[in-house]
Amino acid sequence: MIYADYNGSAPLLPAVKEYLKVRLESELFANPNAIHSLGQRVSKGIEKCRSIVADVMGCYPDQVIFNSGASEGLSNIITSVLEFADVHKKIIITSPTEHVVLPAAFKFFTERRGFEIKLVPIDSEGRVKVSDLEKLLKENAGKIALVSIMAANNETGVIQPYQEIAKLCTREKVDYLCDTTQLIGKGEFHFEKSGVDYAVCSGHKLGALTGSGFIIAKEPRKIHSMVYGSSQEAGLRGGTQNYIGVETLAVALKDFQSHQTKLSELKVARLAFEEKIKTQFPQVQVIGDQADRLAGTSLIGYPGLHGQAVQIELESHDIFVTTSAACADNQPETSAVLRAMGIDDQLGRSVIRVSLSYSHGGKEYTTLASALAAAYNKLTKIHSF
Amino acid sequence: MIYADYNGSAPLLPAVKEYLKVRLESELFANPNAIHSLGQRVSKGIEKCRSIVADVMGCYPDQVIFNSGASEGLSNIITSVLEFADVHKKIIITSPTEHVVLPAAFKFFTERRGFEIKLVPIDSEGRVKVSDLEKLLKENAGKIALVSIMAANNETGVIQPYQEIAKLCTREKVDYLCDTTQLIGKGEFHFEKSGVDYAVCSGHKLGALTGSGFIIAKEPRKIHSMVYGSSQEAGLRGGTQNYIGVETLAVALKDFQSHQTKLSELKVARLAFEEKIKTQFPQVQVIGDQADRLAGTSLIGYPGLHGQAVQIELESHDIFVTTSAACADNQPETSAVLRAMGIDDQLGRSVIRVSLSYSHGGKEYTTLASALAAAYNKLTKIHSF
Repeated sequence: MIYADYNGSAPLLPAVKEYLKVRLESELFANPNAIHSLGQRVSKGIEKCRSIVADVMGCYPDQVIFNSGASEGLSNIITSVLEFADVHKKIIITSPTEHVVLPAAFKFFTERRGFEIKLVPIDSEGRVKVSDLEKLLKENAGKIALVSIMAANNETGVIQPYQEIAKLCTREKVDYLCDTTQLIGKGEFHFEKSGVDYAVCSGHKLGALTGSGFIIAKEPRKIHSMVYGSSQEAGLRGGTQNYIGVETLAVALKDFQSHQTKLSELKVARLAFEEKIKTQFPQVQVIGDQADRLAGTSLIGYPGLHGQAVQIELESHDIFVTTSAACADNQPETSAVLRAMGIDDQLGRSVIRVSLSYSHGGKEYTTLASALAAAYNKLTKIHSF
Repeated sequence: MIYADYNGSAPLLPAVKEYLKVRLESELFANPNAIHSLGQRVSKGIEKCRSIVADVMGCYPDQVIFNSGASEGLSNIITSVLEFADVHKKIIITSPTEHVVLPAAFKFFTERRGFEIKLVPIDSEGRVKVSDLEKLLKENAGKIALVSIMAANNETGVIQPYQEIAKLCTREKVDYLCDTTQLIGKGEFHFEKSGVDYAVCSGHKLGALTGSGFIIAKEPRKIHSMVYGSSQEAGLRGGTQNYIGVETLAVALKDFQSHQTKLSELKVARLAFEEKIKTQFPQVQVIGDQADRLAGTSLIGYPGLHGQAVQIELESHDIFVTTSAACADNQPETSAVLRAMGIDDQLGRSVIRVSLSYSHGGKEYTTLASALAAAYNKLTKIHSF
């Protein structure tokens, strides 16, 4: 089996499985807010994990707020910032290629709270045009509540110029939320150096337990938890802490840190794979291939074929890919991200997403190339009848 | 070791540990929203779990919305109901003994959205007075957005007349949120028969994984997720589903269902324990002992002693209890719940909470009684110096 849907969800890392096997044998299960020694040991464990996460992420421990994942994180940051924004700040600047959580949240705030969206134009690779962002920031100075532009796209793997964006936002004194869900655990990210105000993480994207995650906030006090409670997470996220999930986050990020050199190996193998397919099938296009992308992500299209047909062919070889984002995998249409990039339906409906992890170093690409070639050969024959 | 803090958090059930050990060996890790067969198998697993949960809870599967736990559930229900309430409905009826999540959420809505709280008076056992609730409902007819009264109190274990409350609310056509966090997995609860509109559950309170939980909603479409996303949980809760957590919820609730007869055993043992202590120390009071309570919860006070001292004494015998709710365990004051019950500081500061689970059937009570007697003997000697 080749699991090539790491952008959808990463299987538990071997290191996480090993950790959990031992963890299940322990007696250390208690409410971390209790003052008995079991509770306190659980609580200290959380704080140790917070330090590890902060170390790998390049931030201070008190900037890390554990929660249930990136969708909660993004929703909570947006709700916090917009609910408590100055009444004159009603503009949200965002891009047309954000993950569905963002437009869904912004829809609520435009429809029910009078906010207004301004989209930054993107180039043919899906990157926001920084000069256009600069213009928008200047034109709307004093009226902007939030800038929200992702770090790496879930479908194409294209990396946005988030550090440049952060510089502009800092200069214009505007909060910058950078959706880092796909970058953390898949590429280099250093919170402090990035300059962004808010970052998010989902444990299941990096091989930690499902239902775990965190926010990193430059000024944590700006976060107002949507999950009410008492003093958990320094009052910034209510509810008994998901300490088992938190522990797996630390294990997964440690694992990522110690294997970071494998990222370049993965990238080299991925580029060779893409080249091989493009050479063999000149019609094939790799979306966003002129841009810097995640080391293990390829969005590949053969115009005129149906992505789902390619997906099914690959699955008959025990290879698992998606046609776009996992949460839109069931929609046989050109995705919103690709439409925003100006991609037509012939290409847009034909794509499959191959996403792998550093943990394998890319050795699956040889098998993937043969299987994909076989699929294309088979489907184009049918196509030509 | 005797872990007697099940109301704070239940250790993973043996059945859940066994399940997870096998689960970790499988290859079934994928995004349940992907259409490849791995994703679909994960998705079908979630739906199977939803049916199990619905069966144990006495509701329809589509009334179950999985999330990260009861604090999220309560926050989400309150936010949904109040945000979309008729503009003339600005009154929230609640009790003074609710878990801290509720007053924290209501504070936001009174301060920032113009809602108004009306508290139903309680009797000396902490039960709301149904006739007073009835009066409040009539006096404020047409203006009430929500009634929020818990099922079982986390500190005292006292069970509220939630079925009677539900009847009144149904008659007056007012939504009734019943915080069932402490009841589910610790006592009998049947959603449909209860008549309540909304119930919540935290996995960690019943020995499932931390960070798992669900809402049960009579009319699920009234829920507007605070966690934005796409179609997960029928569009009612965004974010990739915590399927491993969900699976452990089903395992834990099945376990509870098949051991439900142990509840009466636990109750008998708990009552004998309380009687023994009260006979030995006539000063001792069991809070709420005239009321129906959770089978395994005792809140016991020896006026004049310090609850934390008793807690520490017990811990020296490897027995773990708290002084009140776990999330307020560090506050050496009479809890808000006890103050609302009219309990003075002499008694209020002296209490410890002993909370056990059906999974043991109460056999720990013999050891607990001796250890508590020893602690009281030791501390009253010191006290009399």
